[in-house]
Amino acid sequence: MLPFKTLIHLDRSLPVPVFVQLSNQLGQLIRAGTLTPGQRLPGTRQLAELLDLNRQTIVASYDEGVAQGWLESRSGSGTYVADYFPEVKPQRLIVKNSQAASDRNRGTTEQPGYAFERLDFLARPVLTNQDGLRLDDGFPDSRLAPMDELSRAYRSYFRWGNPQKHFGYGDTKGHPLLREQLSIYLNETRGLQTTPENVLITRGSIMGLHLASQVLLRPGDVVVTGETTWAGATMNFRKTGATVLSVPVDEHGLDIDQLAIYCENQPIRMVFVTPHHHYPTTVTLQPGRRVRLLQLAEQYGFAILEDDYDYDFHYLSRPILPLASADRQGMVVYVGSLTKSVAPAFRVGYVVGPTALIDELARLRRIIDRQGDPMLEFAIGQLFKTGDMKRHFRKTLRTYHARRDHFCALLTSELPDAVQFNKPDGGLAVWARFDPKLNMEAMAQRAAQEGLTLANGLFHNPPGQQLNGTRLGFASSSEDELEQSVAVLRRVI
Amino acid sequence: MLPFKTLIHLDRSLPVPVFVQLSNQLGQLIRAGTLTPGQRLPGTRQLAELLDLNRQTIVASYDEGVAQGWLESRSGSGTYVADYFPEVKPQRLIVKNSQAASDRNRGTTEQPGYAFERLDFLARPVLTNQDGLRLDDGFPDSRLAPMDELSRAYRSYFRWGNPQKHFGYGDTKGHPLLREQLSIYLNETRGLQTTPENVLITRGSIMGLHLASQVLLRPGDVVVTGETTWAGATMNFRKTGATVLSVPVDEHGLDIDQLAIYCENQPIRMVFVTPHHHYPTTVTLQPGRRVRLLQLAEQYGFAILEDDYDYDFHYLSRPILPLASADRQGMVVYVGSLTKSVAPAFRVGYVVGPTALIDELARLRRIIDRQGDPMLEFAIGQLFKTGDMKRHFRKTLRTYHARRDHFCALLTSELPDAVQFNKPDGGLAVWARFDPKLNMEAMAQRAAQEGLTLANGLFHNPPGQQLNGTRLGFASSSEDELEQSVAVLRRVI
Repeated sequence: MLPFKTLIHLDRSLPVPVFVQLSNQLGQLIRAGTLTPGQRLPGTRQLAELLDLNRQTIVASYDEGVAQGWLESRSGSGTYVADYFPEVKPQRLIVKNSQAASDRNRGTTEQPGYAFERLDFLARPVLTNQDGLRLDDGFPDSRLAPMDELSRAYRSYFRWGNPQKHFGYGDTKGHPLLREQLSIYLNETRGLQTTPENVLITRGSIMGLHLASQVLLRPGDVVVTGETTWAGATMNFRKTGATVLSVPVDEHGLDIDQLAIYCENQPIRMVFVTPHHHYPTTVTLQPGRRVRLLQLAEQYGFAILEDDYDYDFHYLSRPILPLASADRQGMVVYVGSLTKSVAPAFRVGYVVGPTALIDELARLRRIIDRQGDPMLEFAIGQLFKTGDMKRHFRKTLRTYHARRDHFCALLTSELPDAVQFNKPDGGLAVWARFDPKLNMEAMAQRAAQEGLTLANGLFHNPPGQQLNGTRLGFASSSEDELEQSVAVLRRVI
Repeated sequence: MLPFKTLIHLDRSLPVPVFVQLSNQLGQLIRAGTLTPGQRLPGTRQLAELLDLNRQTIVASYDEGVAQGWLESRSGSGTYVADYFPEVKPQRLIVKNSQAASDRNRGTTEQPGYAFERLDFLARPVLTNQDGLRLDDGFPDSRLAPMDELSRAYRSYFRWGNPQKHFGYGDTKGHPLLREQLSIYLNETRGLQTTPENVLITRGSIMGLHLASQVLLRPGDVVVTGETTWAGATMNFRKTGATVLSVPVDEHGLDIDQLAIYCENQPIRMVFVTPHHHYPTTVTLQPGRRVRLLQLAEQYGFAILEDDYDYDFHYLSRPILPLASADRQGMVVYVGSLTKSVAPAFRVGYVVGPTALIDELARLRRIIDRQGDPMLEFAIGQLFKTGDMKRHFRKTLRTYHARRDHFCALLTSELPDAVQFNKPDGGLAVWARFDPKLNMEAMAQRAAQEGLTLANGLFHNPPGQQLNGTRLGFASSSEDELEQSVAVLRRVI
């Protein structure tokens, strides 16, 4: 008999039950070839004595192996390693003489056997949350997320109703409760008048931008954006084969005069705008320009794609309502997100529009992603219904307001000459322009060495221009962390 | 003073705290115009007496209103309705004289003010889980999902580590734990040899099909599928502007001779195949045809898109390994899903391929959906690691095996003349062909009246053909429910 006492190592301090540990280790012995197909295992009593375990533990462990298919119980004879072991011997996906395998062996990127075209415009840096200090792109502070309320709502979803409906295939447009609650919330806070049928739930605002781009744009169509703007949007426009034109952005937002000139010279299909706070510069589109933009849309028949991802973060007593609230002819596709209001990992966004558009967006969404996450959508809908969500919004807004004020005061007092900025009226980041002589890339690298994550801002540069600007997100850091971050910044500039 | 006692209705039996109820109702009175901007509210002591509440409840309720911004506390003077009430008076999104509003008033679909093209090929029925009896498309039984294990893993994710990283922006390719565990699992069960870098986590298999289609296909490219096949795939091919050709499917799967003829006559970009169990007919691709298909791919340089969504459900002792396991030249893009193995609402799927392809798929995914759900991906990764997932697979497999046998026996004994079928070797549904004289639509309607949901199967018909077939899913029903469903079927045929 095999020396099981030497081969099997059980640890009662682990959270995994002992019978499962034993069963897994028997599986490993089979995979390793130590136990072979058809081999008889010791009797349960015998193995219990050998391993100093209760016999029931051995029985449970053998049963587990039988359930998993790699042990067989033969009545009156004992337990055997299955003749056919379903976990097959691995084979290489791609063998040595193939391109991919030789790439892998050289440690380079593996290439497939068929040709495919890479889209170079998709090669943009992806910003993620890191450990340590941060002045990020304008991320929220996930430590403030209403986790207790969310997890309570999750639990009620898990416990209530018909599991086949709750965890089965549902509505591509989103959970009915969230569509209803979002419709109410958007009407109350943004001056829209929607019904739930006007609301499509998406995964974050980017899915809304993607679906709207794919449905509204065809190759050769012209889209106008501000210079510069969010790459997540322009990459989507370019993916459709559309041509992207840009107009300047000044302290009052998009240059609408330039847009009018474009309109006279060619058909425009769509204008992309974030009137509340333009990305990356955080400026607000002036009311007069808003009215003209809507007039141009009506006159020339283009769609306005309004990305209002940070409307819920405004530090003036009276935010300017979105364009969609003044839209009289159905020109605006309104896109928003809750990811920044709750936490980025909770991927819930929305698109608002006439039902004919919502229907078509949903049809497209269906072939990409079938449906959203009904647990999450229900939980967020429930938090709107109980008022917890609005309470959370108010509380985080006060916190971010204080952080903005503190951060801007720090920049002014600690870095008076190095950084130019305007205190933003809303949003989660400051647009900071550094001394043109400063090497932004080197500065970001020095900051990283001191534990501060900071984007070098090079991706904000339009072709041929050197803005020497970057976004400094203040919302995800406590006031204490902001002080430490500014101290690092001061040292590395 | 207003008659607060009549206006306010509090219910202690509700789960919402009384102070929140009061605060919400005050908010509603403001929205309704009963309380007006600048109006002074009763003192806390006075309102407490009026409503027969503890004074602290009133204080908490007023504080809540202040926190939400629609009450103002003026020191030494009391609590007032805010002069500016941030929940603005709703305006119509689209007013009367616009097309959309007049559509809405007529109860028809609202049209936007800009033109857009609808893609008619996206208008296919969407199958969802319903209450009552069901013989569905092959849905899993969500009642069997490992909810306790999942919710334990969720809790550990919520409690452990840095919330900014856990709930912030993460890796577009998926949670590292799940990529690692899936790589191991796929190597063990499917004979692949992958590293985690070869695995992209998606939302269900359909996102894998979408991404692969968008990256590999360009307008005018030719894709070959079986006739008939899953519409979720063909809609994705057509969305790219590709031309979809089909080859017949017989009892051994795709007709590879016909494919070879196509290859001689034109460039083929991609072949779509589900070798394990073709949809909808459940046939398995014969080993000889698999070898030829791979040879043709190498010879002509086309990609094979292998949708192996139900490999985990096989009722023979030795399933045939996927094409990807025999792929020597990196011709196969391998797509799979866990949604049917856990429950459809838990949207986790994957694509396996060489790293150059995985990188490009992830870049595209980023502009659609940024990232997946890290909580869910971690939880499922954890269940693989502990062995819970495999245990769950084995247990559901046994259950579905028994349900398949029971259901097929019922069809044979109860409907001997009305239904033709072959007992499927795997998967969750039987492909049933009914008497050509039977009106499938009328039958499905009669069944619905008797509480049984059943697809009429018309969407499986190729143009000009009348298959009179539909899929009868047995997995989501208990044996008792299957008996009731077959009894209904017998009555309505």
